[in-house]
Amino acid sequence: MALNTTPPKRFGILLYPGFEALDAFGPMEVVNDLSREHDITLSVIAASRDPVSTLWKGVHKVGQSVMPTHTFADDPELDVLLIPGGWGGFESDAATRDYIRQVVPKLGSSLITVCNGSALVAQTGILDGKTATTNKAYWKECTASGPKTSWVAKARWVRDGNIWTSSGVSAGIDVTLAFVATYFGEDVATSIANNMEFSRAPSSTDDPFASLYKCQDVPPVSS
Amino acid sequence: MALNTTPPKRFGILLYPGFEALDAFGPMEVVNDLSREHDITLSVIAASRDPVSTLWKGVHKVGQSVMPTHTFADDPELDVLLIPGGWGGFESDAATRDYIRQVVPKLGSSLITVCNGSALVAQTGILDGKTATTNKAYWKECTASGPKTSWVAKARWVRDGNIWTSSGVSAGIDVTLAFVATYFGEDVATSIANNMEFSRAPSSTDDPFASLYKCQDVPPVSS
Repeated sequence: MALNTTPPKRFGILLYPGFEALDAFGPMEVVNDLSREHDITLSVIAASRDPVSTLWKGVHKVGQSVMPTHTFADDPELDVLLIPGGWGGFESDAATRDYIRQVVPKLGSSLITVCNGSALVAQTGILDGKTATTNKAYWKECTASGPKTSWVAKARWVRDGNIWTSSGVSAGIDVTLAFVATYFGEDVATSIANNMEFSRAPSSTDDPFASLYKCQDVPPVSS
Repeated sequence: MALNTTPPKRFGILLYPGFEALDAFGPMEVVNDLSREHDITLSVIAASRDPVSTLWKGVHKVGQSVMPTHTFADDPELDVLLIPGGWGGFESDAATRDYIRQVVPKLGSSLITVCNGSALVAQTGILDGKTATTNKAYWKECTASGPKTSWVAKARWVRDGNIWTSSGVSAGIDVTLAFVATYFGEDVATSIANNMEFSRAPSSTDDPFASLYKCQDVPPVSS
């Protein structure tokens, strides 16, 4: 990934069975709205072209299914990859991890994760040596996925170079708006948030859920 | 619709071309999470079984497609119907309005609308004589759809009996959590909001976007 300031054009989102609905559709709402004024693309990438369900092993009784536009086999070139969390992210398969491993180094701009999407990425080794955050309700489970990562508890989101990780579920909206503010301008992010009638987190460190769930920073294990 | 206090079991959401992604998936995230502990169903209802796209007449360059589970022709019995807004809601077709007209009176519990979903419902006459709110960014266009409705400007959401209407896009999360609090308990709504790491609007009248967009109450036109 190249660290540059060029506004990215080619967005993609990785969907897998058991992804969390709002983890994906919060950021996608932002990107959809961004596309009203900016010439961008958004690919929905999955293992196959079958609809991808939010359901996972009976955790929920109800769920929704979303149509992919691309597969791991015909993966498009991307500037930005969004990776949502969800119950399925705790038990990812090898094909999903392989896709992440091969695509992230080729991204033109940035990786953005939501919730335990960062735990899924940590399983690939990509977060080794990085600073990140993740879901607060399952803090211990998520941070255990990345023993070589510095995990920040009190963070709505964390930016480490071109890797942006957010806290749980609705925090995906805040990290995506922060990303848009950085690359497209604060006025663009504000306009999108106002269109969404969404009150943004005041800052990346404004996170009431770290204390609610009694999360503590987790330093990397020294090797 | 019967006004009762029984927790509803059978949820449905109406999707139409050009629905707004977060209008639908904010409330669905809440209902999905509710289904972890409660025995409920959620039907995704559309004109046909084809995937329903968020795209509408080139407003956005990118969008997503969602799979329906039911059609207007084989519509399931419902307690709660969710109706999102979106660009397509401004130009609804007769089949969608007919479905709304015939299904709402049969609901076992409540109608919940998000954003200009209330303007779409107003076009059917169902909001005549009711108090409601709607999207703030397109306040004049939305309220004009319901000349016999009392439109409240400074409202994150409005409850009038068994009709719940919300402000724009992300307000759909707040109205659905308020609905869950009423029928399933405040503790259940708080738990879901915490799982979503979502900071709820403090009250139904806490709406910074009414003043941002300079919205004024619109009383019904006297007949």
